[in-house]
Amino acid sequence: MMMKTGTRPPPLIYGILALAVLSRWAMTDPDPLQDYCIANTTSSSSSMTMNEIPCINPASATASHFATSALSKPGNTGNRFGFNVTLANTANLPGLNTMGLTLARVDIAPQGVVPPHSHPRASEVTTCLKGYIHVGFVDASNRLYTQILRPGDSFVFPRGLIHYLYNSDYRTPALAMSGLNSQNPGTQIASLATFASNPEIPEQVLEKAFKITGQDIARIHNNLGGSWMEFSSQDDKSLLGRI
Amino acid sequence: MMMKTGTRPPPLIYGILALAVLSRWAMTDPDPLQDYCIANTTSSSSSMTMNEIPCINPASATASHFATSALSKPGNTGNRFGFNVTLANTANLPGLNTMGLTLARVDIAPQGVVPPHSHPRASEVTTCLKGYIHVGFVDASNRLYTQILRPGDSFVFPRGLIHYLYNSDYRTPALAMSGLNSQNPGTQIASLATFASNPEIPEQVLEKAFKITGQDIARIHNNLGGSWMEFSSQDDKSLLGRI
Amino acid sequence: MMMKTGTRPPPLIYGILALAVLSRWAMTDPDPLQDYCIANTTSSSSSMTMNEIPCINPASATASHFATSALSKPGNTGNRFGFNVTLANTANLPGLNTMGLTLARVDIAPQGVVPPHSHPRASEVTTCLKGYIHVGFVDASNRLYTQILRPGDSFVFPRGLIHYLYNSDYRTPALAMSGLNSQNPGTQIASLATFASNPEIPEQVLEKAFKITGQDIARIHNNLGGSWMEFSSQDDKSLLGRI
Amino acid sequence: MMMKTGTRPPPLIYGILALAVLSRWAMTDPDPLQDYCIANTTSSSSSMTMNEIPCINPASATASHFATSALSKPGNTGNRFGFNVTLANTANLPGLNTMGLTLARVDIAPQGVVPPHSHPRASEVTTCLKGYIHVGFVDASNRLYTQILRPGDSFVFPRGLIHYLYNSDYRTPALAMSGLNSQNPGTQIASLATFASNPEIPEQVLEKAFKITGQDIARIHNNLGGSWMEFSSQDDKSLLGRI
Amino acid sequence: MMMKTGTRPPPLIYGILALAVLSRWAMTDPDPLQDYCIANTTSSSSSMTMNEIPCINPASATASHFATSALSKPGNTGNRFGFNVTLANTANLPGLNTMGLTLARVDIAPQGVVPPHSHPRASEVTTCLKGYIHVGFVDASNRLYTQILRPGDSFVFPRGLIHYLYNSDYRTPALAMSGLNSQNPGTQIASLATFASNPEIPEQVLEKAFKITGQDIARIHNNLGGSWMEFSSQDDKSLLGRI
Amino acid sequence: MMMKTGTRPPPLIYGILALAVLSRWAMTDPDPLQDYCIANTTSSSSSMTMNEIPCINPASATASHFATSALSKPGNTGNRFGFNVTLANTANLPGLNTMGLTLARVDIAPQGVVPPHSHPRASEVTTCLKGYIHVGFVDASNRLYTQILRPGDSFVFPRGLIHYLYNSDYRTPALAMSGLNSQNPGTQIASLATFASNPEIPEQVLEKAFKITGQDIARIHNNLGGSWMEFSSQDDKSLLGRI
Repeated sequence: MMMKTGTRPPPLIYGILALAVLSRWAMTDPDPLQDYCIANTTSSSSSMTMNEIPCINPASATASHFATSALSKPGNTGNRFGFNVTLANTANLPGLNTMGLTLARVDIAPQGVVPPHSHPRASEVTTCLKGYIHVGFVDASNRLYTQILRPGDSFVFPRGLIHYLYNSDYRTPALAMSGLNSQNPGTQIASLATFASNPEIPEQVLEKAFKITGQDIARIHNNLGGSWMEFSSQDDKSLLGRI
Repeated sequence: MMMKTGTRPPPLIYGILALAVLSRWAMTDPDPLQDYCIANTTSSSSSMTMNEIPCINPASATASHFATSALSKPGNTGNRFGFNVTLANTANLPGLNTMGLTLARVDIAPQGVVPPHSHPRASEVTTCLKGYIHVGFVDASNRLYTQILRPGDSFVFPRGLIHYLYNSDYRTPALAMSGLNSQNPGTQIASLATFASNPEIPEQVLEKAFKITGQDIARIHNNLGGSWMEFSSQDDKSLLGRI
Repeated sequence: MMMKTGTRPPPLIYGILALAVLSRWAMTDPDPLQDYCIANTTSSSSSMTMNEIPCINPASATASHFATSALSKPGNTGNRFGFNVTLANTANLPGLNTMGLTLARVDIAPQGVVPPHSHPRASEVTTCLKGYIHVGFVDASNRLYTQILRPGDSFVFPRGLIHYLYNSDYRTPALAMSGLNSQNPGTQIASLATFASNPEIPEQVLEKAFKITGQDIARIHNNLGGSWMEFSSQDDKSLLGRI
Repeated sequence: MMMKTGTRPPPLIYGILALAVLSRWAMTDPDPLQDYCIANTTSSSSSMTMNEIPCINPASATASHFATSALSKPGNTGNRFGFNVTLANTANLPGLNTMGLTLARVDIAPQGVVPPHSHPRASEVTTCLKGYIHVGFVDASNRLYTQILRPGDSFVFPRGLIHYLYNSDYRTPALAMSGLNSQNPGTQIASLATFASNPEIPEQVLEKAFKITGQDIARIHNNLGGSWMEFSSQDDKSLLGRI
Repeated sequence: MMMKTGTRPPPLIYGILALAVLSRWAMTDPDPLQDYCIANTTSSSSSMTMNEIPCINPASATASHFATSALSKPGNTGNRFGFNVTLANTANLPGLNTMGLTLARVDIAPQGVVPPHSHPRASEVTTCLKGYIHVGFVDASNRLYTQILRPGDSFVFPRGLIHYLYNSDYRTPALAMSGLNSQNPGTQIASLATFASNPEIPEQVLEKAFKITGQDIARIHNNLGGSWMEFSSQDDKSLLGRI
Repeated sequence: MMMKTGTRPPPLIYGILALAVLSRWAMTDPDPLQDYCIANTTSSSSSMTMNEIPCINPASATASHFATSALSKPGNTGNRFGFNVTLANTANLPGLNTMGLTLARVDIAPQGVVPPHSHPRASEVTTCLKGYIHVGFVDASNRLYTQILRPGDSFVFPRGLIHYLYNSDYRTPALAMSGLNSQNPGTQIASLATFASNPEIPEQVLEKAFKITGQDIARIHNNLGGSWMEFSSQDDKSLLGRI
């Protein structure tokens, strides 16, 4: 990604990164086995974390813990891929903790794409609300299932399988809403994970996997802009804070 | 509910009934442990069912099995409660089978209400898309959490707890979209389950539970119109077909 | 409930309330994945809780942690409904933590009723030990299944569905014992959740849901006695202590 | 065990054997994800089974499917160990299918013992209803936790750990009721599994494991009566039918 | 991959394909809730499948159902990637059905690579038995964790995350053994899923995701050899049979 | 076990004891619902534990947290049974926390035996790497399934059922590697749990269960060497430290 000098890091795909970053924090998706367990988001500075998010004292619960306006505003799609995912998750909707699902708002700029990616811990059903969205997923036998979604159309992305969304229109932004059956689905973008990891995957491995040359790899790596670098100076919390 | 002679059963809350009816069919929500298991909906005439829905041969899978337009059209809210829930579930979206979640479109007429109800097998997160919706849930200590949702606002309904949605506006229909973390959440409407079951709950039980008289019970029962009667001549399948 | 001046809060349905109250404390029901994890019940004063109950150091485990006499004494049924539920749960049986089930003793006075209620997180099988008990549950299609249990008879209440128990006899108390497959099943009484929540569910919602008038609602609410009020001056812990 | 010539096999510990036998039939304990899935017990003659029990058509459900009197009668304790376990399970209570728990009635003759055994798929909480019962379980560090239960006392047996119940009284039978959090807990009696399996565990293995001689092994084996032999002429179904 | 004219499709990575193919068959990974449920592999010709594999009649169970020599022979690594994965799974070890895990033998030729891939339904722990293996996985924040394994060294690949194994030696084959906690983990190779799916992912999506040109895409696609084509004339069963 | 005076406790079956001891520490095996949650093993001195192992701050994660050489060295089989189990678990492989599986290296001396035991929380698949191993498990109907494993052969031990491994050769040590589908399977050796628990199971119970005399019991107990005594002066942590 080409970043101009002096600019602050672009507001890039914060949502999907939040999925990634959240997945580095300790959480769990057991059955919701209490009425609610409102996430105590103030405790995240600790050097020790748990596999689940601690809860606030239930006596302090208020209706606002179960509500969020996070999905009400369009996400900033002014990034290299042209999309933005905004999540309603425990960071902005603490009452969601232990409930076992996440809602996501997906904004896609004209000609924008949510690049092929997978969620290691959730299946997803997406519904197109505005525009037209080409969607597809690849199963484990490399078969691709695709569809063009119009407003009101829904599509299933099975758990852990690579899928994408693409707004082929040149003028109209697209909008979708997704449900995912984990409070922390996680997201791994295939191109970034393979060509822009930190450190990089050994050249020989990528050469053999993609049947390309070291020069190809270097070019793709450069074009992808060292995605991880943009975030190296930012701690998880600030990213979380932006959601 | 007052049904006029000769009319066909009113298009009443098919969605939410579908939830109810589906829950009488054998399904399961284990982890999705295959890429997909497309529901074989043609096998439902059998006298024996399973706790899960059989799948079609994966070689016959097509993209259309993973897509549905079911949520694209407003539901008919011309019923006694003034709401309609349309589900994207295995009946109209067979690729959803084993994926562990359901999307729902909720239409609420002006002054309409989704009456207090619970989902025995799912938590829910709802997002208001149009209008203003009063929402609330009651926890097990009888504490009520309420919020007024504007477009873009989301709210959590924890699993198994009684909740409602209410469009207080006198003119504008409201629209919401919900994710539920089960492929078959099930729905039980508190007023119908207590006062309009078939057969009726013994009068003494209701008298003591609600501290009302037998006359009160008879009146509520009559007003609620013997909800179950409307459907007694309809087999499950036709209801499923209407979703 | 009418409380006379100067009296201490009546010993009302402590058990079932304990179910309710416990469900506001953070617990979880994952597979028991250690030999045992004895609940550390002294840590509950913390302002932060977890989705699971912390354990004591296993080196301090004693046989008494796995034993309780809680179910040995009849519960006080001198309340408006005429029943009492006593639980063997992590509060009085800390070795039960992570074991995934609860036993309950149900005492029902002559003409007493365990009002229609549901457990959001457990199925239940009840066995009548003394007297005759009318039992029933309503499924999601509003169909009622009922039975009269004699001593030794058992009945199933599926998870999350509204059910009741009723001792129709005028003289003999009834006794039942139930198993529930969660260490914290939770309980929501339909009449209290709808007509006696704190704050109250908006009148319009109840009017439409039950097809009754605002006057009816006020009367039912008053008769039910503002159930939540009785407990407003009591913290969760004291209730827990009484079980 | 003393078997008289010409008699049919004694009614030995049918309940606990039912646990064992049932566990050879294909069942599963996923979350109950439909209102109910009444076990179709007539299909068991098929040569192919499933990991779950098929259900009857829900339209054929009756209240009797959710009820059983199986626990109302004392089990026959006239066997070598002096105990009998009667289960309320899917064989006699088909509505229990998918509900995730089992109730058990445990009758123990004076001086009778439920020998050290484990349930591979369930934790158990037992409550003494009559008599005095010595109970104990051994954890994975070989620590024994014991208690003497009086009527009304409960005790926890963690999943998969060896435990026993013993009625030390010389005159009074004891009675207990247990809840187990699986619809098919399974039972393995340690002495029978090690010294009376069919075929026998190699002598060298037992010699080394128990530090005994081949003569000891033969003697124990003979005393235990070749437990499996008694049932070799009986198909699973007849055993199921006797519960 | 270089395929010589007239040859039959090379014995390419059968194991990993078996993972892929198996994941198109209906299976489930619930808790093992019966002693065993031996997979009935003869029933797979049916046009209807289940989310779980049916079992044979337990009376027909033999020790051989629980044993396999599948992992005893080196896999053929003479393919474009230079590796072979052989699985002990329900196809060759029917007693594994419902047990919730899989063992895998991984042979890697000198300079061979198991290309970056993920398992949608399992975590993996691999142990190097021969040679030296470079291993690595990328987390959802694109951070790469790598290690060089010598014989006896183990490494963790968290569920759903992209990982690889690489034998950098020019002469010595490497051998590893892995455990995966699902009976059907599934495998998706990132390069094949993105550049060699059938049909192909739209060029615009790949251009944007990898920041490459249509020519690059065509070249990579050709080099990868249209992986899916090799198998298009083979039914699932024959592939299963080869494992 | 005969311990010579003045010697330090022999390095006896540390692995299998680690399984036992670990199972007394609080852990859980929910789905891995974050990328990873590296076990914080320094926190174990606390008097309060959790049902899960706390994680270190993910920012401190290194590749070494996901790697271990624990399985590279043969275990010391110089103990009364002639075997040693070494585990790759959260104690030496902290990145395994929440991953839901364990690998085990099993060394068996000539004529050594892994005595009949069960894992309360895991199924196991074992693969013979060296030597010949007699393996067997007993199902809940006391049926024994046995096999002789040669190098490369695998065998299934279903969850919670008693099984054994025996190296019948007089000269060659045997080596096997096992996968178990829990991060903390737990282990209970049948002979030690019944005859060498601390305190001892009442004589009457063992007499009746095994049909032996009090003298037999005393002899077996003595021969088994009071297994628990050897470890009474050692805290859990030191045992953990040795793995």
